[in-house]
Amino acid sequence: MIKRVHHIGIAVKDLKESVALFECILGLKPVSIEDAPCQKVSEAIYEVGDGMEIDLLEPTGPESAVARFLEKRGEGLHHICFEVDDIDAELKAMEEKGVQLIDRQGRDGVAGKIAFLHPRSVNGVLVELVQPGSGGSNNP
Amino acid sequence: MIKRVHHIGIAVKDLKESVALFECILGLKPVSIEDAPCQKVSEAIYEVGDGMEIDLLEPTGPESAVARFLEKRGEGLHHICFEVDDIDAELKAMEEKGVQLIDRQGRDGVAGKIAFLHPRSVNGVLVELVQPGSGGSNNP
Repeated sequence: MIKRVHHIGIAVKDLKESVALFECILGLKPVSIEDAPCQKVSEAIYEVGDGMEIDLLEPTGPESAVARFLEKRGEGLHHICFEVDDIDAELKAMEEKGVQLIDRQGRDGVAGKIAFLHPRSVNGVLVELVQPGSGGSNNP
Repeated sequence: MIKRVHHIGIAVKDLKESVALFECILGLKPVSIEDAPCQKVSEAIYEVGDGMEIDLLEPTGPESAVARFLEKRGEGLHHICFEVDDIDAELKAMEEKGVQLIDRQGRDGVAGKIAFLHPRSVNGVLVELVQPGSGGSNNP
């Protein structure tokens, strides 16, 4: 079951410039800036309102999925992440319904166990699921 | 000042199909389905978590901005809407900082007074501002 929107991911070319821009025009300051090596991005994390995050994502290498997105579509809204209680049960149920999964099982992400659904199955939207606190951080 | 994320807008080609899809794979049911004539869309509104909404948007005519988005980029994440206290003061401050505005003043939307910032000024992200309860509904 979807509990809430955990975060929105925005693909950017230059994290430092975008952090300055977000502060200047929206008055938003990141609560942290960190690397997510498994996704090959550096990210600036914002808390906006009641626990919801906005993550600005800059790829750290050309093989990053975010780098491919930037090349194809340019900067902009990249994905939406929903919080769930039991990620593996959700993925299993979705697969049975014919949803195309990028990850068939939850894997360790910064915020917990994560998995992505293919945009082809969700109206062109790249959907991430997260089960917070259930995975190890992939940061050193 | 940005208070919270009010909603995320997702552009879809066929609202009825997408509502069925969102229920089937994500277990989400809309709290309402309505027309927003000033934006030339029909929208299905979901409440996900603490008051945040997801809006699925189907254009009602080819002159809709959402129709142009679909033609250019296909279905997917369309815009992010931030709640503010004083929309006209925010727009004035942003304009003074050189932000390119689609609306120089708040105008009536479904949820209150609304305005859009140009994606060129915000890392390719179409940003909407809303001052809830301050505008008339544009619905009959």
